[in-house]
Amino acid sequence: MDTAIDLSNPSAALDLNNIRFQLIRLEDTITFHLIERVQFPLNPTVYTTGAIPGLHPTFPTKGGSTSEGSLSLLDWNLREQERLQSLIRRYQSPDEYPFFPDALQTPILPPIQYPRILHPNDVNINAKLKEKYTNEIMPAACAQYGRPERPEAQENFGSAVTCDVMCLQALSRRIHFGKFVAESKFQKETDRFVALIKAEDRIGIDAAITDAKVEQKVLERLRLKANTYGKDPAGLAEETPVKVNADAVVSMYKDYVIPLTKEVEVEYLMQRLNNTQWE
Amino acid sequence: MDTAIDLSNPSAALDLNNIRFQLIRLEDTITFHLIERVQFPLNPTVYTTGAIPGLHPTFPTKGGSTSEGSLSLLDWNLREQERLQSLIRRYQSPDEYPFFPDALQTPILPPIQYPRILHPNDVNINAKLKEKYTNEIMPAACAQYGRPERPEAQENFGSAVTCDVMCLQALSRRIHFGKFVAESKFQKETDRFVALIKAEDRIGIDAAITDAKVEQKVLERLRLKANTYGKDPAGLAEETPVKVNADAVVSMYKDYVIPLTKEVEVEYLMQRLNNTQWE
Repeated sequence: MDTAIDLSNPSAALDLNNIRFQLIRLEDTITFHLIERVQFPLNPTVYTTGAIPGLHPTFPTKGGSTSEGSLSLLDWNLREQERLQSLIRRYQSPDEYPFFPDALQTPILPPIQYPRILHPNDVNINAKLKEKYTNEIMPAACAQYGRPERPEAQENFGSAVTCDVMCLQALSRRIHFGKFVAESKFQKETDRFVALIKAEDRIGIDAAITDAKVEQKVLERLRLKANTYGKDPAGLAEETPVKVNADAVVSMYKDYVIPLTKEVEVEYLMQRLNNTQWE
Repeated sequence: MDTAIDLSNPSAALDLNNIRFQLIRLEDTITFHLIERVQFPLNPTVYTTGAIPGLHPTFPTKGGSTSEGSLSLLDWNLREQERLQSLIRRYQSPDEYPFFPDALQTPILPPIQYPRILHPNDVNINAKLKEKYTNEIMPAACAQYGRPERPEAQENFGSAVTCDVMCLQALSRRIHFGKFVAESKFQKETDRFVALIKAEDRIGIDAAITDAKVEQKVLERLRLKANTYGKDPAGLAEETPVKVNADAVVSMYKDYVIPLTKEVEVEYLMQRLNNTQWE
């Protein structure tokens, strides 16, 4: 049976074979969640700040609500989920990064002492991921080519943003796994990367971490997964609706997941020689 | 593209073809969530009341925590998730039933006026479902036949109960869809069911709603789905670990999902002639 990567063991967590296994496994998770999301219409209202009144952030410090600011339904739900999930230690794990760091609370579970795996860094590109997700990835994934857009359904607003949280968290985890990839590569070819980092040669770093053949294989595998998981294996082809648009899944990886992962790797390496310590 | 059943339209919601489509689609959802859950060990500590100190229920009325009672981590997380999800109207939907009705809060989204689809009833077998899930379904699903049980991993406690909530909610939705099946059958063969209900003939009702051939087909389809979604379609058979135990998925349906769905159908029909009105 497959198992999750062991982050309590630094040499296992930085073994490129284990990382590769985890990244391939996350493709399944991401595809599953996306298939669940696109059962519902795009419902752009849920992504629009102020479109639904009364959605304000709650802050952990006082435990009560404030009326400051206004959020989209997605942001409200994502923020509240992060508040809640922080209580059961989600953001203590070195592979989890919040979209709303100011919403996190002190866990009610005893803390886990994870070993140091990564160099201290503040790389978090969730804001960019969320912007791409709501404005580009979701509109493409929910589109039914050659047919009109499904009308908004307010009965599905909650379902849509519940699925969105699952999709965004899985995508964020996949993309920030780039830090483990980068650290592993740095440890393997330290001299080469030290020279590139000292020269602030982001393009050189990007070239050093890019393997076009592997990227092509990832995209081919994604298409196969979208096609396999995206239809009922017992259904007759002519009467079984396709659950997800395979082109949209492949584009999501090609245009967003892979480039954002590389951005994480480059920015992580740019901080790799800093003397900063964890707070 | 496939779409969720339209519960704002009573005749669509009670059309047996639409219900059948939704039930088949929920098999995918349940299988996906189960595959995600069994990445992690069983971690029986998360199901044990009092095993982790400090987990107390919070109540919606006062908005603060109390120190009364003690919960397992699963119950704590499921209860807090229901509190949060009730705010975005999850439990207004006629196909959603809470595990902790006393935790629900008034939605912050404007209410949706769903049409009357079902007869007033108080059937909710989530307590039984949760008991079977934690004591029987999960131990079987997490077992790796012929190999020792994976040791507990406290780094995965939060991940495990996060997945458990998804599994339980999907299973609950599937099982309580029995009400729609029962209502549809009642409307088709009203005289027959009225006689059985008046005679309090639960065995006769169970026989009237049972189709052994259809049940056999469901189990065969489940095995195919578990095998298809449970392995990487691009992986080499010898090196790709199986993600889920297909026998456990089939048994879950055979021994729990199908019998509990029929129990919902029978109990719903037993209340079908009552004069009770919705509060």
